Amino acid sequence: MIRFCNDYSEVIHPKILGKLVEVNTGQAGVYGEDTYCERARELIKGLCGNDDLHVRFVVGGTLANLLVISASLRPHQCVISPTTGHVATLEAGAIEATGHKVSTISTDDGKITAEQIESFYSEYTDSDYRVHIAQPKLVFISFPTEYGTLYTKDELQAISDVCKDRNLYLYIDGARLGYGLCAEGNDVDLKFITESCDAFYIGGTKQGALLGEAIVIKNENIAEDFTSIIKQRGGLLAKGMILGLQFTALFEDDLYFELSKHANKMASLVRDALKKKGVEFFIESQTNQLFPILQNGVLEGLSEKYLFANWKKVDDESSVIRICTSWATTEESIGKLIADMEASLEQSGE
Amino acid sequence: MIRFCNDYSEVIHPKILGKLVEVNTGQAGVYGEDTYCERARELIKGLCGNDDLHVRFVVGGTLANLLVISASLRPHQCVISPTTGHVATLEAGAIEATGHKVSTISTDDGKITAEQIESFYSEYTDSDYRVHIAQPKLVFISFPTEYGTLYTKDELQAISDVCKDRNLYLYIDGARLGYGLCAEGNDVDLKFITESCDAFYIGGTKQGALLGEAIVIKNENIAEDFTSIIKQRGGLLAKGMILGLQFTALFEDDLYFELSKHANKMASLVRDALKKKGVEFFIESQTNQLFPILQNGVLEGLSEKYLFANWKKVDDESSVIRICTSWATTEESIGKLIADMEASLEQSGE
Amino acid sequence: MIRFCNDYSEVIHPKILGKLVEVNTGQAGVYGEDTYCERARELIKGLCGNDDLHVRFVVGGTLANLLVISASLRPHQCVISPTTGHVATLEAGAIEATGHKVSTISTDDGKITAEQIESFYSEYTDSDYRVHIAQPKLVFISFPTEYGTLYTKDELQAISDVCKDRNLYLYIDGARLGYGLCAEGNDVDLKFITESCDAFYIGGTKQGALLGEAIVIKNENIAEDFTSIIKQRGGLLAKGMILGLQFTALFEDDLYFELSKHANKMASLVRDALKKKGVEFFIESQTNQLFPILQNGVLEGLSEKYLFANWKKVDDESSVIRICTSWATTEESIGKLIADMEASLEQSGE
Amino acid sequence: MIRFCNDYSEVIHPKILGKLVEVNTGQAGVYGEDTYCERARELIKGLCGNDDLHVRFVVGGTLANLLVISASLRPHQCVISPTTGHVATLEAGAIEATGHKVSTISTDDGKITAEQIESFYSEYTDSDYRVHIAQPKLVFISFPTEYGTLYTKDELQAISDVCKDRNLYLYIDGARLGYGLCAEGNDVDLKFITESCDAFYIGGTKQGALLGEAIVIKNENIAEDFTSIIKQRGGLLAKGMILGLQFTALFEDDLYFELSKHANKMASLVRDALKKKGVEFFIESQTNQLFPILQNGVLEGLSEKYLFANWKKVDDESSVIRICTSWATTEESIGKLIADMEASLEQSGE
Repeated sequence: MIRFCNDYSEVIHPKILGKLVEVNTGQAGVYGEDTYCERARELIKGLCGNDDLHVRFVVGGTLANLLVISASLRPHQCVISPTTGHVATLEAGAIEATGHKVSTISTDDGKITAEQIESFYSEYTDSDYRVHIAQPKLVFISFPTEYGTLYTKDELQAISDVCKDRNLYLYIDGARLGYGLCAEGNDVDLKFITESCDAFYIGGTKQGALLGEAIVIKNENIAEDFTSIIKQRGGLLAKGMILGLQFTALFEDDLYFELSKHANKMASLVRDALKKKGVEFFIESQTNQLFPILQNGVLEGLSEKYLFANWKKVDDESSVIRICTSWATTEESIGKLIADMEASLEQSGE
Repeated sequence: MIRFCNDYSEVIHPKILGKLVEVNTGQAGVYGEDTYCERARELIKGLCGNDDLHVRFVVGGTLANLLVISASLRPHQCVISPTTGHVATLEAGAIEATGHKVSTISTDDGKITAEQIESFYSEYTDSDYRVHIAQPKLVFISFPTEYGTLYTKDELQAISDVCKDRNLYLYIDGARLGYGLCAEGNDVDLKFITESCDAFYIGGTKQGALLGEAIVIKNENIAEDFTSIIKQRGGLLAKGMILGLQFTALFEDDLYFELSKHANKMASLVRDALKKKGVEFFIESQTNQLFPILQNGVLEGLSEKYLFANWKKVDDESSVIRICTSWATTEESIGKLIADMEASLEQSGE
Repeated sequence: MIRFCNDYSEVIHPKILGKLVEVNTGQAGVYGEDTYCERARELIKGLCGNDDLHVRFVVGGTLANLLVISASLRPHQCVISPTTGHVATLEAGAIEATGHKVSTISTDDGKITAEQIESFYSEYTDSDYRVHIAQPKLVFISFPTEYGTLYTKDELQAISDVCKDRNLYLYIDGARLGYGLCAEGNDVDLKFITESCDAFYIGGTKQGALLGEAIVIKNENIAEDFTSIIKQRGGLLAKGMILGLQFTALFEDDLYFELSKHANKMASLVRDALKKKGVEFFIESQTNQLFPILQNGVLEGLSEKYLFANWKKVDDESSVIRICTSWATTEESIGKLIADMEASLEQSGE
Repeated sequence: MIRFCNDYSEVIHPKILGKLVEVNTGQAGVYGEDTYCERARELIKGLCGNDDLHVRFVVGGTLANLLVISASLRPHQCVISPTTGHVATLEAGAIEATGHKVSTISTDDGKITAEQIESFYSEYTDSDYRVHIAQPKLVFISFPTEYGTLYTKDELQAISDVCKDRNLYLYIDGARLGYGLCAEGNDVDLKFITESCDAFYIGGTKQGALLGEAIVIKNENIAEDFTSIIKQRGGLLAKGMILGLQFTALFEDDLYFELSKHANKMASLVRDALKKKGVEFFIESQTNQLFPILQNGVLEGLSEKYLFANWKKVDDESSVIRICTSWATTEESIGKLIADMEASLEQSGE
């Protein structure tokens, strides 16, 4: 059984493991105050082009999201998220558990627009009942989105502008940031991300690390005492260096970007093969996540060898599935998958 | 300027004030342990037909909602509410501030169906990502709804059944319960409300009281230590008797229901007059709230004498407004309103 | 049975009730936006000598405390309170329910000193584990304290200075503020209170009102969007005018201070009588609360006619009780109490 | 510089690292549903002698504590902790951030007694103001305590009995559980721990793992939906297997206990040497943490080669420090430390 159901079924990239093997016998500073974390912070600040950034490492994306959001908001303030946003759907109420509402803007492809944000905010400010409505204060978007789609530079700039204009924080979930930055056709880079928003995180867990996300904070209001806030939420690792050394491994040469490119390329092989066979996609994504619509018969044939994520039922005959490639996906396994899919599609006469 | 913008612009019904005048010089027990609260509790239990109920008095509806909901849920559990539900829209994130998500089911008229609840819950239980989703545990509905509409006995029974079947709490917001119970065509009574749900509240503030809502709890899991939970949220009045004496005044004879009938009758006069003039309504409501669609020209003409609530813009030419009658609305003021509306409608040629 | 167990057993002062009777038939603005609240705000700002203050009315002291504190703090920040502070003892975990720790400084008489605050804060800043400790950010004191004691002008100035120096908010719980301001020997006035702190509240419930506390906020960081925060906690009254008219009645002439002086005088009669009889006091208080130590035999004799608060057991033979007088205590009832206490003390040979 | 300031300065035990190297190229189930976690759960249930236990793995102790506590309590309920308890001192308000108060019982050595718990609880139940007091519901103790001391079997049984009698949950923080279980003179084993309480955790981070604590829950009320609660707090690792494989390595042979014994032995060498030199200890601990009182001159001499934790100042001349040994402490480094300490003590003429 080969798992294409997500991009975190493989444990750790050998180069990162190598780092761990190197240091295992020594002693290190604790709680993120060690040479590995220090080095990783410097590397990230360099790539982002801003020496004043605050970089903190935590174990997962939900934790990163709830930390940044709860550090940003006063009690009555809320998040604006796309309906598909991770904070709105798959975090078991994590943001609400810190006391804050997640208000949503409707989307089909995972993206929202500057106009939608402006309109949502105006509806709030124009309401006679404004005092009775949770106050929008932070815009949450993902790059790439939960559907693998990407904001263009212009779209992101427009969102950034409306946030500045309306005094809203902009926060970007980068659980799969590398896959987005390295996607074909993408015109956004790390420096632009940094300039456009108040805080974001660089995903490690889905990008080759054992575990770990790097939170990057530009806004001093959010950054103040952030380590204490991490501690309070149970997220401060005694052996924080385990996170620092992984990000060092990912960023001291171009490993992070190479792995991202590889996963995207593996995904594009599958995408091209399926399109050639006439398969339709629920959404056109440019990154390592594919959302083809397949007939149940086709899926059954594949289910003995491959694991996909069930995304949603289309009708009684067909479903949307999610196929994820990762930094660890081999050309061999992709070759097998394509061959088996083609055979299954032909057999079912699709 | 006459206010028809809500049903809480008038302060207090004379009979209730009379009670207050009677007792003002004496001493009383505190924190709701006094003869007035005791008497009000007995009256309410009698009307509900259940001696085992727990009745607690608090100052407002948002407080009642956040108390019952937070007393009912474990951390990861959430509320299911109509998109129009008060907890989802106009409580400034009060439920989220207690740590719980409010998930919504779409509605046009303020009501949701048993089928929608079943379907929403099934989607949760059937999801491969169930662990990552806030767990639905309490269904919130309003009687009447925020749009003045009512559930029939059959509809409410079906909702009650699906909640029992799925082990969900059912909680009913009765901010305007009296207006609903006394509406023409309504087939639900207090005993049926009590049987159908785990907890509900009987609104006082919008029904003639100075302030106060009576929370009625049937489910022992929710009721346990409820007074301490009220205290913790800052809602336990030192002079709780002020709430008890008002509910005594409302329920020791039929005052509560008489006032409700009066308000409904005043509303029906306006409704009939507007319909006769061909005015359309955003929603057909049976209670004391009306939602007519009026042209801006008509509204301008009326705005010097009357205050309405702006509900929503329909287009550049017309808007939905809310007209509320109350226990205190006089036939005289309604007569004036109708005459002025008719004149304004004729003038604008609508 | 005459209740001396607290100062909120009597319902409402006739002058305040008179206000309510006057307005009961009219209409008013809602949610605190009405002429009564506006007038009360102006009166209070005048007495405090500062036109830029933000004044908000809520129904109780616990609510006032949790609102101001949660509006002031970021997630990792905590309150410093005397061990006897209301927020630390008798609010059922209300502050913690908003997410914040209440750290305590030891006291015997309800008061803490500037030196204690400085020392507590230094211990925090000097700790190697500072990141792991909730960050002190707001100092909570009561005037008068929960034991009826008072800070002198010099003591309060010193506390104010250390708070400013350490960038700590100073917040004063004034549930019985009037009794304190009007106490014999007190050298603090409303203007000085206002100058010394960031926020405080003026108690109404224990000072003649039916219910209501006036929150006075000087610091803009705390004041921002405060009404929305009140709404979120369930504390925004639809008929907010009921609070405004009471504070208007209390402050438009000197009623608030007259009532306070009266209660203090009634207490001093009891204090003097008991001292003459050689009774010792648990604490020397200057206001309307007395804490005598009495033998069980004496208490039993009185228990058929009077209700006191059991404060704490001293040993198997004697206890501390609390005797409260109020704005409503009559000279007649005080006369009876003194006579009966004297008789009981003589009988028991104390 | 050799670090004796804590027991988590070393990264990972080679056997555990070996496990990681083995699996790094394969695929695994996610979110703790994998063969490694399954195996670790079985091993732990076996050692605890109870097949019905629920075992969940998380990254740190503060997270374990806040998860178990918030899963156990209703809003108004609080924790009883020793004043020295980790939840009361060094978690930056983590428990309060979930809405619950931590009430404390005074202790000098880190331990509290059954009598203290009984007395604390009785004071609550006997209070006239019970409704106004946070309700004690869960007793938090640590084994070993934060001062390295241990409860005897009889002491723990007595605590367990009073908790059952008073319907209180008993929860044990086992951050250094192994060091306690393997201490000389200890008469408690894993099975007894399991029987005595409702939930506890087995520390990994301070016991040789890279990171990880195993939460063991016996009480079904706490266990229900626990994984969803972990997710909500941001603690559910995508690659949960990293935790499972470490606990497998620790428990599939006796590694966990061997490492614990080793650390205890290293500590006893230092303890004996210091005692021989007449050094006094702040507390007599039996495990891997030592709290000697040393003169500043002695400490200065050692500070170039060794890092200790500053625990507290005794007076201007001397301080309590904490010396921690760990699974990784070598006999060589201990030998050096002892020699240098002896020399420094002699030089200062202590």
